Amino acid sequence: MPIVTVQVTREGSAPGRNSVTAEEKAAIIKGVSEVLLDVLKKPLESTYVVIEEVDLDNWGWGGLPTVQYRRQRVEAAKS
Amino acid sequence: MPIVTVQVTREGSAPGRNSVTAEEKAAIIKGVSEVLLDVLKKPLESTYVVIEEVDLDNWGWGGLPTVQYRRQRVEAAKS
Amino acid sequence: MPIVTVQVTREGSAPGRNSVTAEEKAAIIKGVSEVLLDVLKKPLESTYVVIEEVDLDNWGWGGLPTVQYRRQRVEAAKS
Amino acid sequence: MPIVTVQVTREGSAPGRNSVTAEEKAAIIKGVSEVLLDVLKKPLESTYVVIEEVDLDNWGWGGLPTVQYRRQRVEAAKS
Amino acid sequence: MPIVTVQVTREGSAPGRNSVTAEEKAAIIKGVSEVLLDVLKKPLESTYVVIEEVDLDNWGWGGLPTVQYRRQRVEAAKS
Amino acid sequence: MPIVTVQVTREGSAPGRNSVTAEEKAAIIKGVSEVLLDVLKKPLESTYVVIEEVDLDNWGWGGLPTVQYRRQRVEAAKS
Repeated sequence: MPIVTVQVTREGSAPGRNSVTAEEKAAIIKGVSEVLLDVLKKPLESTYVVIEEVDLDNWGWGGLPTVQYRRQRVEAAKS
Repeated sequence: MPIVTVQVTREGSAPGRNSVTAEEKAAIIKGVSEVLLDVLKKPLESTYVVIEEVDLDNWGWGGLPTVQYRRQRVEAAKS
Repeated sequence: MPIVTVQVTREGSAPGRNSVTAEEKAAIIKGVSEVLLDVLKKPLESTYVVIEEVDLDNWGWGGLPTVQYRRQRVEAAKS
Repeated sequence: MPIVTVQVTREGSAPGRNSVTAEEKAAIIKGVSEVLLDVLKKPLESTYVVIEEVDLDNWGWGGLPTVQYRRQRVEAAKS
Repeated sequence: MPIVTVQVTREGSAPGRNSVTAEEKAAIIKGVSEVLLDVLKKPLESTYVVIEEVDLDNWGWGGLPTVQYRRQRVEAAKS
Repeated sequence: MPIVTVQVTREGSAPGRNSVTAEEKAAIIKGVSEVLLDVLKKPLESTYVVIEEVDLDNWGWGGLPTVQYRRQRVEAAKS
């Protein structure tokens, strides 16, 4: 009876998108549920998957909000 | 000093509603806090309750988004 | 399809006990599941309850580990 | 590789504000990441911080929604 | 920078085992990380996976501790 | 009334230690509680901190259990 919680930033996976699409969410749900079926033999109907989309401002990495941290890494890579 | 987290789908409990009402939230908070008072003698003022409403698209069950899984179960029940 | 997570300190509810008993856990599970049935009409079999027991050292309150904070409050109450 | 989750009510820290500001979020991210660097020597770039803002209706304390519980405490303090 | 939390009961996936094996944990980590790479193009090194094993006593389903609920379902299926 | 959850691997911060010490836990609790006091003016006594130590086998990074991923990074850095 697994519970899988997937936390991702609320942003698009391609230019022109600004959130995870319903199709992508369905693919994540299917994918992780099948991992638990394959590895632990957990029937699909006993697995709950909860996707939490987190605003970019609310996700920190490297001591900074994500957008700033990514910019810093790009700058560092250039120099 | 318990913390109780209640995750539910963001939908109504009756026709014409599309979310959990403030009254229902208050009843959940009261109910679970009293369970911890009754069973573990935790004073009400030491219990925090956090309700997380999850969009239907973001909740997976049976390897599918919830709406599709429910439809599948209804179909199966009919046949 | 609610998920209820109950976090409590790992300690007994009465002298001579040092953890939550299996009977108390069963009562918590029954109690919170019934709250969701009563308030939101969620069938019992669709609710998962996860109880997490947290060591006292690992729970902070008032900027202190719980045991120290409780002692401080008792001292304050005496003075 | 710590993960720090900060749950706070969605409200302002000063009159005229009704949410946590981007600057406050950045300060929380910086602050907690530095605590883990100082205490456990975890490099900043290995720490993720997730801030979850919870609507006041969805946060319970003292067996009541937060706004009601705060009002009750103010009343009690007056009497 | 996804975070995936996988909660499962602490029990074996085959007779003679009483917990999830290190190999199974590695397979879960690999599997769910690849789902996020495939679906959202998240690089493997940006995904954290946390597996939480929950004692059977601490997991409730159907308003009962899991072991009792499973027994009840087996009985119901027989009758 | 913030809740701060700190998830770290169960390992020592210096040679000869194999877990987070009680002093380190107290320092984390103090540190993060003070961040919330400083930034959001949350009184210390309204903040709960929960520290979750996660076994190394149960923490994945880069699609691998942590120990393997760290070894891989060390190898890569050498070549």
